Amino acid sequence: MRKADIKYTMERPGKAAKSAAYELACAAAERKYTALITASEAVITQTKAIAAANERDMARARAKGLSAALMDRLLLDEGRIRAMACGLRAVAEQADPVGQVMAEWDRPTGLRIRRVRTPLGVIGVIFESRPNVTADAGALCLKSGNAVILRGGSESFHSCAAIHACLVQGLKSAGLPEAAIQLVPTRDRAAVGEMLQMADFMDVIVPRGGKTLVGRVQAEARVPVFAHLEGICHVYIDASADAAKTRAVVMNAKTRRPGICGAAECLLIHRAVADGLGAQVIADLQAAGVEVRGDAGLAHLPGVVPATSGDWGREYLDMIIAARVVDDIEGAIAHIRRHGSGHTECILAEDAAAVQRFFARVDSAILMHNASTQFADGGEFGMGAEIGIATGRLHARGPVGAAQLTSFKYLVCGDGTTRAQA
Amino acid sequence: MRKADIKYTMERPGKAAKSAAYELACAAAERKYTALITASEAVITQTKAIAAANERDMARARAKGLSAALMDRLLLDEGRIRAMACGLRAVAEQADPVGQVMAEWDRPTGLRIRRVRTPLGVIGVIFESRPNVTADAGALCLKSGNAVILRGGSESFHSCAAIHACLVQGLKSAGLPEAAIQLVPTRDRAAVGEMLQMADFMDVIVPRGGKTLVGRVQAEARVPVFAHLEGICHVYIDASADAAKTRAVVMNAKTRRPGICGAAECLLIHRAVADGLGAQVIADLQAAGVEVRGDAGLAHLPGVVPATSGDWGREYLDMIIAARVVDDIEGAIAHIRRHGSGHTECILAEDAAAVQRFFARVDSAILMHNASTQFADGGEFGMGAEIGIATGRLHARGPVGAAQLTSFKYLVCGDGTTRAQA
Repeated sequence: MRKADIKYTMERPGKAAKSAAYELACAAAERKYTALITASEAVITQTKAIAAANERDMARARAKGLSAALMDRLLLDEGRIRAMACGLRAVAEQADPVGQVMAEWDRPTGLRIRRVRTPLGVIGVIFESRPNVTADAGALCLKSGNAVILRGGSESFHSCAAIHACLVQGLKSAGLPEAAIQLVPTRDRAAVGEMLQMADFMDVIVPRGGKTLVGRVQAEARVPVFAHLEGICHVYIDASADAAKTRAVVMNAKTRRPGICGAAECLLIHRAVADGLGAQVIADLQAAGVEVRGDAGLAHLPGVVPATSGDWGREYLDMIIAARVVDDIEGAIAHIRRHGSGHTECILAEDAAAVQRFFARVDSAILMHNASTQFADGGEFGMGAEIGIATGRLHARGPVGAAQLTSFKYLVCGDGTTRAQA
Repeated sequence: MRKADIKYTMERPGKAAKSAAYELACAAAERKYTALITASEAVITQTKAIAAANERDMARARAKGLSAALMDRLLLDEGRIRAMACGLRAVAEQADPVGQVMAEWDRPTGLRIRRVRTPLGVIGVIFESRPNVTADAGALCLKSGNAVILRGGSESFHSCAAIHACLVQGLKSAGLPEAAIQLVPTRDRAAVGEMLQMADFMDVIVPRGGKTLVGRVQAEARVPVFAHLEGICHVYIDASADAAKTRAVVMNAKTRRPGICGAAECLLIHRAVADGLGAQVIADLQAAGVEVRGDAGLAHLPGVVPATSGDWGREYLDMIIAARVVDDIEGAIAHIRRHGSGHTECILAEDAAAVQRFFARVDSAILMHNASTQFADGGEFGMGAEIGIATGRLHARGPVGAAQLTSFKYLVCGDGTTRAQA
């Protein structure tokens, strides 16, 4: 498509979203609820149509020789379609954030001040292969009173369109503007570049995908971005760690699903337990098929592959884990500070002071104590769904649910109240 | 200064701030308290030195022929120096935001989740003539556990340095790193350009000043910016407005201090009361020396200057006000939506439904009911001080006090808790 055409193609939805956002900001909670429930039901009744659309995408992907991992992300089977419908319902059942009073207080001047949640406006979501993001992101934006422009990966084009149709059905049934949830109508990659420039029509961009996508968005965007970096999750085994809890948590954190951003990528082991619990944990992982890349302190353990400097701060998303011996908790904290991505880290410890120190000194979006890093997920946090996991510190952080997609304003009530001269 | 020199000049404080931020993030609340109280006392004991430094700036400004308004902003007399000391104390006495639990809940998995406030990191503040921003911004950043790099206007160079010395005295007395509050050590304007590029050392930039400064910051910054646009504040007089309250509030909103960002700049009058209360309010303003620029609906009133299209959405910061008749509250809302800057708007009304509609439909940082727009101020909101008034919707909005200079993280506690297979 020519540049001018792309601009035109994107400007129309931009304008429509802006005006839909204005309507949506004042939409009654019940209408948004109705839209989401209807969309959820539509996903169920349209299961076959969604599966058929997905099959078209899968066939194209197969022909293009996409990797098995990507094919798996793209696939929508009946279970996943049902999960999507459940997700829509879960978001519907959440409390409506818009208008929520976050704080209120009185002033000696007689003013009463309330701080209430408001929508952000128009949100752009740029995502890769997994087509169910259409439903999650669309639902969370609607719930939070925001219009959304969704741009899925070109390989999931038909799947996203079929899901989007269900969302539109929901909007229609509730008398809400269809433009509130839009899907970019072209596969042309230039559309992403255009979205990143649309500061007039968009209030924030959420990139959800791999390093290349997120890097491009952060470099080019003239619209604010909720940073979503990699999940280089660390698990630190303290000298005070309980053996049974540690073995269970490490195994789950690495192997439950090695391909998600909450999967553990690096093990930091206190020197005092390196040869005991540490060796045991490494043997467990190896027995489960995990390749352990260890530093010099672990080189004597059977089967450990020597780690190189490139293994620190690396997101494998695979059955591989880096492992390192640290002298103490400070060593672990320093390693995370240097190599972490600010996503999720875990401490395994029974010593409360150690936990406290880890919680205070490590500045990642999520810190876990004696719990698997794989819990880093909006659903597991009770948010119904998530639009992604933000690793930046501005505005949103951690799993981004509907509440994080809001801003606030101050409502100040007086009674003819005037400010005194300074 | 050469470009390489500026880069070097700025990189050193940047690195020092980054490492100070790390220390500050875990600093005990009492130490920050001590630092602020000591700084407040230092401002009092150093009153003469500050005044002398200010006189150097004033002499230079006089020689350069700065306007009376700018000279007034630059001036630090004894009263203003004392106010600065009080501001430091007020911030000291606020609750420490760092570590505050914002929410906590349990999950069916057995996890307990807490969301706690954390500092942002390093904040850059770029401001213009008023030197007291050094104290306010320095104090709020310290309170919120952030390091700060301050860049004042070149005309207030010596005043800012004298105030900064008091803050450093406070830091030293509390054993906190001196680099936690830094003042850019050069008058060279290129330093601002360099700050805007320092994404590696700075987490957010707060521009505080006129349109030109803020525009430049937003256009060039590679660091996230808390938007601080103009204060084009509107006051809407509803058909249900109470005459006495309205007359008092409008007069205060416009004339108390016409040069501050919370001053009213445009009056929107419901047609039903245009010739009654509206005419009265306009006569009041004129009697107080305000030039009223009215639209056709007000042309018949004595002394009203015809408004041109350039008068809508204009920030006079002077004894001038635009005025317009609207058919109803929707007309007022539409005008604000088109011409407002998202800062502060006021409705004068006794009809609760009208107030409710205005509160729901106008999306500005602060909405006032029967209260003067001049209350748009962190101190008046009870925040002790403010670093500015944000007009954007991301992260901070309205008066930015210590709490808005924080982020948060999730602390998740389990007991060997693992996530079930999907």
